[in-house]
Amino acid sequence: MSQFPAWSDVAPRLVDVATGRSPADMVIRGGRWVNVHSGEIIAGTDVAIAAGRFAAIAPDLSYCIGENTKIVEAGGRYMVPGLCDAHMHVESGMVTVTEFARAVIPHGTTSMFIDPHEIANVLGLAGVKLMHDEAMTLPVNIFVQMPSCVPSAPGLENAGASLGPKEVAEAMGWPGIIGLGEMMNFPGVAAADDKMLGEIAETMKAAKTVGGHYASLDLGRDFMGYVAGGPADDHEGTRLIDAVTRVRLGMRAMLRLGSAWYDVATQVKAITEMGLDSRNFILCTDDSHSGTLVHDGHMNRVVRHAIAQGLKPITAIQMATINTASHFGLERELGSITPGRRADMVLTSDLIALPIETVIARGDILAEKGSLIAEIEPYAYPAEAKATVRMGRKLEAGDFDIQAPEGASEVTARVIGVVENQAPTKALTATLKVEDGLVAMDRAGDVCQIALVERHRATGEVVNGFVSGFGYMADCAMASTVAHDSHHMIVVGTSKADMALAANRLGEVGGGVVVFKDGKEIALVELPIAGLMSDERAEIVAAKAAGMVKAMEDCGCTLNNAYMQHSLLALVVIPELRISDLGIVDVTKFEKVPLFV
Amino acid sequence: MSQFPAWSDVAPRLVDVATGRSPADMVIRGGRWVNVHSGEIIAGTDVAIAAGRFAAIAPDLSYCIGENTKIVEAGGRYMVPGLCDAHMHVESGMVTVTEFARAVIPHGTTSMFIDPHEIANVLGLAGVKLMHDEAMTLPVNIFVQMPSCVPSAPGLENAGASLGPKEVAEAMGWPGIIGLGEMMNFPGVAAADDKMLGEIAETMKAAKTVGGHYASLDLGRDFMGYVAGGPADDHEGTRLIDAVTRVRLGMRAMLRLGSAWYDVATQVKAITEMGLDSRNFILCTDDSHSGTLVHDGHMNRVVRHAIAQGLKPITAIQMATINTASHFGLERELGSITPGRRADMVLTSDLIALPIETVIARGDILAEKGSLIAEIEPYAYPAEAKATVRMGRKLEAGDFDIQAPEGASEVTARVIGVVENQAPTKALTATLKVEDGLVAMDRAGDVCQIALVERHRATGEVVNGFVSGFGYMADCAMASTVAHDSHHMIVVGTSKADMALAANRLGEVGGGVVVFKDGKEIALVELPIAGLMSDERAEIVAAKAAGMVKAMEDCGCTLNNAYMQHSLLALVVIPELRISDLGIVDVTKFEKVPLFV
Repeated sequence: MSQFPAWSDVAPRLVDVATGRSPADMVIRGGRWVNVHSGEIIAGTDVAIAAGRFAAIAPDLSYCIGENTKIVEAGGRYMVPGLCDAHMHVESGMVTVTEFARAVIPHGTTSMFIDPHEIANVLGLAGVKLMHDEAMTLPVNIFVQMPSCVPSAPGLENAGASLGPKEVAEAMGWPGIIGLGEMMNFPGVAAADDKMLGEIAETMKAAKTVGGHYASLDLGRDFMGYVAGGPADDHEGTRLIDAVTRVRLGMRAMLRLGSAWYDVATQVKAITEMGLDSRNFILCTDDSHSGTLVHDGHMNRVVRHAIAQGLKPITAIQMATINTASHFGLERELGSITPGRRADMVLTSDLIALPIETVIARGDILAEKGSLIAEIEPYAYPAEAKATVRMGRKLEAGDFDIQAPEGASEVTARVIGVVENQAPTKALTATLKVEDGLVAMDRAGDVCQIALVERHRATGEVVNGFVSGFGYMADCAMASTVAHDSHHMIVVGTSKADMALAANRLGEVGGGVVVFKDGKEIALVELPIAGLMSDERAEIVAAKAAGMVKAMEDCGCTLNNAYMQHSLLALVVIPELRISDLGIVDVTKFEKVPLFV
Repeated sequence: MSQFPAWSDVAPRLVDVATGRSPADMVIRGGRWVNVHSGEIIAGTDVAIAAGRFAAIAPDLSYCIGENTKIVEAGGRYMVPGLCDAHMHVESGMVTVTEFARAVIPHGTTSMFIDPHEIANVLGLAGVKLMHDEAMTLPVNIFVQMPSCVPSAPGLENAGASLGPKEVAEAMGWPGIIGLGEMMNFPGVAAADDKMLGEIAETMKAAKTVGGHYASLDLGRDFMGYVAGGPADDHEGTRLIDAVTRVRLGMRAMLRLGSAWYDVATQVKAITEMGLDSRNFILCTDDSHSGTLVHDGHMNRVVRHAIAQGLKPITAIQMATINTASHFGLERELGSITPGRRADMVLTSDLIALPIETVIARGDILAEKGSLIAEIEPYAYPAEAKATVRMGRKLEAGDFDIQAPEGASEVTARVIGVVENQAPTKALTATLKVEDGLVAMDRAGDVCQIALVERHRATGEVVNGFVSGFGYMADCAMASTVAHDSHHMIVVGTSKADMALAANRLGEVGGGVVVFKDGKEIALVELPIAGLMSDERAEIVAAKAAGMVKAMEDCGCTLNNAYMQHSLLALVVIPELRISDLGIVDVTKFEKVPLFV
């Protein structure tokens, strides 16, 4: 683990280079300086780099060139500050921090603010520390937001760990911690809950940034209470009024374009149509799947999209560079091409299409023409991070039996209704037949079984229920240890035998996602690190994930983004009906409910 | 000394008020919300205040009103965040911090970033601590910048104290220290001087703001070196290109309108004509004389002036509120009317004329209709701060004798040439007669004597020289212990007897400014605190200062701003010729020179 030297550590060298007493390490000649401070684009500019930081920027820096100075000819191309992702979860890519960085560096991302919320639910503070330490080894800037809501829904689920103000205070002392991760317990903040305000207080005392997450459409008193509680940003806005209200009240609006989030277009109208000051708007991805990283891009995709919505290129770039840096108190550390800042830069010949031609981070060329050219070694996770699927025993088909009430010939059961392209589910009911004392599924009616398999404490417990919406037509089962937010194991299937096979298979490989059909494994994505992340390359993970989607389709599932729907079925903070290790949960009332009505 | 409670200390109460569970302390109804985050002005807005901070802002906050809630009717007036002065020296007003605050609060200033550079030259770190502690007692926000250059010119003068990286590190731990004061040793930074970079490093390590002061027109390599050294702002720009270059290179341009500084009009064209992003521009006063405070205003005068130069009112206000707060890392603490921030607000019925009708700071109404209504007690300075004029002995006319070289009947002497309305002097020479072995003054040629009287270590030393430009026609002398930057005593006179009288008088009263004519005292401004500040009211000091200007005129002086010229004659960092306790100094070469050519 190494820390990048502070500006003040290398100031004598920077001054020597800037004044011409010492040659630069690198000089980039003849570029168009995309100046995010002044809002200008200044042609014919040279840039000198030393000790991994910018030392000088001027029309002619030939005086900085010595024998060993590397010269890069910008040739009139735009010199853009390295792009920043203001809020994101590495775990969504199902890869390690290292592999995530390898994937996004060629897309021009040189700074990321990551919230390791998922691993925290499995491994607690130790998991956060693992990703923090990994982040510190990388040649780009990865700052960690300390997860704030573990578990997400105390009382409604048992996560693998629990974090509170004490852990937050401890983490604030780590060098790579930049603030508190999204405070998603917004009812708790509005209720002035001690634990939530305690975590915020510890973050404020450390003079760091409190991330927000207000996932409600109500902008009334509770929202005002949430803002008064201290969160400094929010990426959960979806409507124009959401962005406008947040900025007016002194928060930064983070506009999100993730693999499945499309919140930029509506909200950016606050700038393009209403004329609000753009400085308080920031771009982020929140969640990017490996396929998106491999095939579509990362922050370059977001900036390009923002420009396509009518933002001036310089404004969109500010929203992915200096605005982000300012928000996290890093304005003098990164986010612009000016003396003293980390030498992070993208060279591109077009600000609209934004081809990422050269990527420089901390003064080193890391990528050229879309390909990583730097050596970045895989990070070795310790054995304990790879032994997190603790099922306690081998499951059998019978573990998924749902006993009917004594003597019943049919039952009315609660059914989690998946809604395509929406995170909330519907609280449905279905009348189901009873056969041999057991409640039967209804394949024709698209009602199959869901099970929550405890995997943190090896209790061997299985909670069974019903789900509708996937459209499985075959004898099949899909299991996943990515099961937000507590990340037990969710098994959905039409065949109890396949459900047992799928669950046991994940136990064997240490977690991941698996699909069984007719007793055979037809897709597997191994995610041995905390049951959330692969230790393989992003390309391989993306290919396996594509195979998993194909396998779901082969089982009859036609739902868009079906895997994501599957992994969210235990998310007991989003209405209406969910499953947890404690039972079936009505998230409109935040209480457990019986399976049968 | 009291610290204002942190946001996190009062968050539970703010949340309770924002959600309606607890009544507010104050509700301001029906104002026009000058929203410096969004850049909008939003009519029909209510504001709720609790625990000295804003708790809620919305169209209707009647739900926050309880029995004991104070109601203020804005009646459609503009609600402007309290104004911030980003860089200033209290000592320039010749009054205490308390009295300065009393004077400027009715003008709408609720936050000041003060650099006690003058007292530091007299009393060292202890002097800084005195003003810091005084600042903490006041009901407005006064942050202290730790003076960086004491002495200003080591080797060319002996100041009353010396500060370096060790003292900077110590001060960074005080609660009211916001950063490092103007780094005016720009040649030192460009030369990578250990002491200067050491002070900057200590400030950066404390994550505080490094103030800049680059008083040169050269924007070449030395300037680039200065920027690479770390200063984050600069208020010394005078030309359009100065502001533009600073902002492009990632500094904040502070545009200054002081009693004698007029640097806004030229530089604000960077925004109004060139269209640069205004977020990196900030307004400040730097130096305000007591007369300006009493008769003309403070930051309200600066904002009004900036608007008159063609800035949109909201932009000018941003430059005196949120831009300043952001620069010092206080964006979530003050500078806007949003939940959690200190409840600092000005009510005004016109954004152009900017009448300051009501001033609220930390939730209390401090001023109404231009008058202070809050009780603010004088601050008692300790005896040691009032015993700083140590002359060692009583001076006599003979102490001002200038011996001619043996046998000379005339000499060619160096003469400090004062240039009206300019800080730099001219290095003149004059041929002067010798009478009885002593060099004579030449009243007809406007050459009189100047003396630097040592007053920090009671050495009893007097350095004599010649000055031209004041136009004194009578037998007279003027003495001042305000003598930038080391603040010994400067005596200028046509009569050696009057010079002795003037110097001794300041010794008696503990410092200040005095004018003698024909052996009689015709004006006196007592400045007993460090020989720099009065302990009287600003109105009284302003009247006495006006009397002093009148007295100089009575002696024949027609120079504009003559007192300021007098007090700058020992400023051995500004060309061309100056006087110090070590002798006559050629500031084009930074070396001592003989009095005679």
